[in-house]
Amino acid sequence: MKAFACIAAAVTLVAFSAPASAQFAKPEDAIKYRQSALFVMSQHFGRIGAMVNGRVPFDAKVASENADIVADMAKLPWAGFGPGTDKGGNTRAKPEIWTEQAKFKEGSDKLVAESAKLAAAAKTGNLDSIKTAFAASADTCKVCHDAYRNK
Amino acid sequence: MKAFACIAAAVTLVAFSAPASAQFAKPEDAIKYRQSALFVMSQHFGRIGAMVNGRVPFDAKVASENADIVADMAKLPWAGFGPGTDKGGNTRAKPEIWTEQAKFKEGSDKLVAESAKLAAAAKTGNLDSIKTAFAASADTCKVCHDAYRNK
Repeated sequence: MKAFACIAAAVTLVAFSAPASAQFAKPEDAIKYRQSALFVMSQHFGRIGAMVNGRVPFDAKVASENADIVADMAKLPWAGFGPGTDKGGNTRAKPEIWTEQAKFKEGSDKLVAESAKLAAAAKTGNLDSIKTAFAASADTCKVCHDAYRNK
Repeated sequence: MKAFACIAAAVTLVAFSAPASAQFAKPEDAIKYRQSALFVMSQHFGRIGAMVNGRVPFDAKVASENADIVADMAKLPWAGFGPGTDKGGNTRAKPEIWTEQAKFKEGSDKLVAESAKLAAAAKTGNLDSIKTAFAASADTCKVCHDAYRNK
């Protein structure tokens, strides 16, 4: 049974990993891809943050447009963290990403879920709901950056 | 009448430009943003290209997923070409982008339209339709790169 569990885990890992590594011509592309997707997301997330923090006037339509983009972008970066992409480009990604795959995936799944909630909150146009959802999303960024990104 | 037309054109230009320049903290961020969005788009576009050109087996579901992402990403880069973002970072963008704003916008609008057609074609699962729509989208990339990107 132990051997079976081990093989099952290995098969799962391959199934999870294979598409990611196959999608990019070289590790450098995967690194550039994940950094690009995260940067685009951060710019749109920051615009919601500016409204949440009162630095710019609240505009429900703009908040919702940006939140929709964040929710879409949140799904993308993770394919760029496939096996063999810990090196090969200028990256601050910690090796723990590849030794703690399940935990890392849990973190990225959480961002996807929280950013979908943020997009839903933004559709209501209620600033308090947006503030709550924004904070929850921002927390998923922080937890993951603290654990998996070099300073 | 001529003065009015001139003012109307100026107002239109400001309306078109103001949000773009206001969205980024500095020109460097706008440049990084547009390059990031274009790179993410290119990776997904390339995956459809690999199927269209027979380098990888055709998978209708994968083609459609990638085409949806291309269609979404195609809307983003243009906000990063606001006034004052011709310099301030490592960019291959030609100055003509800012002196031929209407023509540049026509080109970017065409990519948005063609990539939406590509996403629709991909939903049909018909490889020939995808090939036609892919070629039309790729042509909009080439026309714009030839005119507005330094080698």
